[in-house]
Amino acid sequence: MKVSLAHLGPTGTNSETAAIAYADWLATNKQQEAILCSYPNIALALRAVAKEEIDLAVVPIENSIGGSVTVVLDSLWQSSNLQIHQGLTLPIYHGLLSYSSSLESIKTVYSHPQALAQCEKWLERFLPQAQLIANSSTTEALKFLKDDLEAAAIASPRAAQLYNVPLLKEDIKDRPDNCTRFWIIGSTPRDNPKGSHLSLAFSLPQNKPGALVNALQIFARREINLSKIESRPTKRSLGEYIFFIDVEGNSSNPSIKAALSELSSHTEELKIFGNYNLLPIPL
Amino acid sequence: MKVSLAHLGPTGTNSETAAIAYADWLATNKQQEAILCSYPNIALALRAVAKEEIDLAVVPIENSIGGSVTVVLDSLWQSSNLQIHQGLTLPIYHGLLSYSSSLESIKTVYSHPQALAQCEKWLERFLPQAQLIANSSTTEALKFLKDDLEAAAIASPRAAQLYNVPLLKEDIKDRPDNCTRFWIIGSTPRDNPKGSHLSLAFSLPQNKPGALVNALQIFARREINLSKIESRPTKRSLGEYIFFIDVEGNSSNPSIKAALSELSSHTEELKIFGNYNLLPIPL
Repeated sequence: MKVSLAHLGPTGTNSETAAIAYADWLATNKQQEAILCSYPNIALALRAVAKEEIDLAVVPIENSIGGSVTVVLDSLWQSSNLQIHQGLTLPIYHGLLSYSSSLESIKTVYSHPQALAQCEKWLERFLPQAQLIANSSTTEALKFLKDDLEAAAIASPRAAQLYNVPLLKEDIKDRPDNCTRFWIIGSTPRDNPKGSHLSLAFSLPQNKPGALVNALQIFARREINLSKIESRPTKRSLGEYIFFIDVEGNSSNPSIKAALSELSSHTEELKIFGNYNLLPIPL
Repeated sequence: MKVSLAHLGPTGTNSETAAIAYADWLATNKQQEAILCSYPNIALALRAVAKEEIDLAVVPIENSIGGSVTVVLDSLWQSSNLQIHQGLTLPIYHGLLSYSSSLESIKTVYSHPQALAQCEKWLERFLPQAQLIANSSTTEALKFLKDDLEAAAIASPRAAQLYNVPLLKEDIKDRPDNCTRFWIIGSTPRDNPKGSHLSLAFSLPQNKPGALVNALQIFARREINLSKIESRPTKRSLGEYIFFIDVEGNSSNPSIKAALSELSSHTEELKIFGNYNLLPIPL
């Protein structure tokens, strides 16, 4: 049976690279064939999964420089059925693409806001006067280049090849270890008894001082390590948050089971997004 | 002596509205006159303050729907001298501005990414087919409207008046209580003995399980309330974070003083961004 995979498009984005890497893993390890489908934005890709119009979505969740991709957190919290099936981390390569042959002539740089943020220092140093314009994806940015010799886009070297746009600079990222963590998200509950990571989110009863610390102590007392904590607004009123937590371990482990049960009595709402493994993708 | 105030421009942004509100407060309460200066982005406004080219910057830090404005957190952490002088919260009004007279003809909507995020549900409901394009500010978006009857921008009703662009829809926000918290940031250390809030950030020694909980317990044990916690990447490697915390209280309070002193021995780096009050701005 073929598996359909949604990703942020058009073709050439880092999300597509991650989807291809996951498709390769499926072919090798599960003998499953994948079909890739590109979506104009991440929220729509996740909504297609929630509505079961597509099997899985491969979405960026966090970059080592830019931080969290908040639309993924918000979509998970708002949906009733999205579950994380796998995690995978990819190195990110940013090139400066342009039909111009000199850096001096570039007056405008287009890209996805995350890519612009990841190359901020490089842009400040080499193109301090350029106007930065945000687009919905790194490859979307390429369509502004054709008629404008004073424009450049930040996109992957793969996009340069696919769209036949010259690479004016090969590697412009600010730091050597730029990488992005992706989640593969499905709509079916999936208790993976061997999953090494568990992601969840909760809101807290209002006006209870120390409520967050109390919730975190539930894990600390049991020496359960939290690999991440992130807050997002509840969108009800300023100062009310949803907390997203990544736990190292599996919910079938008795100590984690007990922690989750205790946590549910301290939270207003608790959502568990499933157990999953981080895939080793050789690149 | 006149005070110079940096804000995200051009004229007509919500940041400018906040800067005007703060200027009014200064005139009434301190008999000080303020001069407003607009900057093309928030990072540049804060850098001008850090370099002492301008006295203060009025910058958005958090919206009740969109969440944190991460560039402000990153700038505070990276600078060595930025300090928060005041906080103020403003209600946010979003209109849909266009030279078109019908919603049906709109194919593209321009605005700042935060404004697009705050009107996400409205856009999905009334303009599901429209392409959303991000700009550097809500008023920057207006320049795309003149030659395009199929385009609209999300900006304040005040921007509609200032730039003489028709308001196609008056109030398109997703939720009734949309508001944004702003910080007024200066470069001089400012220990306000009556400040009701204290903001700080820290990084933790790597690979120490429970380090975050240990740090938070320092406040919990003393019944000090944290009104916010937010994580940002250290930008060194994936999974390493800086934690930003808002504390209710003043650093001259003995219990907070003791907590900060204990905290400094648990953190890798600790930065305190000062004590400040939340200004009551009548609007």
